[in-house]
Amino acid sequence: MLKLFQYNWQVRDDWFTWCEDVPEEDLLKIRVGGVGSVLYTLFHIVDVEYSWICGLQGKPEPEEPPFETYDSLSKVRDLASQYHKEVESFLTSWTNEMEYRKLTETDSNGETVSFRHGEIMRHVIAHEIHHIGQLSVWSREIGRKPVTANLIDRGLYE
Amino acid sequence: MLKLFQYNWQVRDDWFTWCEDVPEEDLLKIRVGGVGSVLYTLFHIVDVEYSWICGLQGKPEPEEPPFETYDSLSKVRDLASQYHKEVESFLTSWTNEMEYRKLTETDSNGETVSFRHGEIMRHVIAHEIHHIGQLSVWSREIGRKPVTANLIDRGLYE
Repeated sequence: MLKLFQYNWQVRDDWFTWCEDVPEEDLLKIRVGGVGSVLYTLFHIVDVEYSWICGLQGKPEPEEPPFETYDSLSKVRDLASQYHKEVESFLTSWTNEMEYRKLTETDSNGETVSFRHGEIMRHVIAHEIHHIGQLSVWSREIGRKPVTANLIDRGLYE
Repeated sequence: MLKLFQYNWQVRDDWFTWCEDVPEEDLLKIRVGGVGSVLYTLFHIVDVEYSWICGLQGKPEPEEPPFETYDSLSKVRDLASQYHKEVESFLTSWTNEMEYRKLTETDSNGETVSFRHGEIMRHVIAHEIHHIGQLSVWSREIGRKPVTANLIDRGLYE
């Protein structure tokens, strides 16, 4: 499980670096599909990962902060790094016996829903990879080569 | 590991169903980013998964068949279902002790490269989710709602 999170963190960092060479207006431009813009996508990925990890720790899940207060590369990076310590510490202490623990929540319709912790972990992994796939299309629209999505050749197994 | 493959297979099937209502020219239209078209993406996902699973079984990895012979929804679906039995049977017999087995190959430059089996498995998982993210953008370009990428609420843990 940890390896796929480590993959996501590496790819995310590569995208942050990719953003350094792209004019901010291209990063903020509203595009077709996904959640709208490159920077909002990165913000959303960071926020969603942290919220679920809070939930799995039994902490209240924070509301998504307004993107208007995080609408620059440096602010999104700061938020990511602020959340990362807690996320990483939870991830490295993950054990297989946590897989079937139950997380019970109230959804937006007021109904009680429950998930297994392993289910949420995999949901978070897939959520990030999916949104990164969207960035790769927008990257070509901007005329730039996207970050590689390859998991091999990242040193994850050395 | 199996759960993420099962997620991918469900999502892929949902995309095949999504394709049923889309004119073939939209499925074959060359788009910006990714491998080019909706149908070629699905073909590519199916081919890459099968090739790596062959490699992990010690079988020769087949060359990618020419897309020209698989350029319709029904042909890609048939190919997917032809490969699926073998892929699923390998996946369901996967055990954790296979994680660090070594797969050694010759890359396109003639150099010897080696990977851990667990690394390849995660590479295949991420590969599909990434490409599906690209389909979701193209889907909105076509003016259609994409298949949900959510892993929760798919019954994977029931």
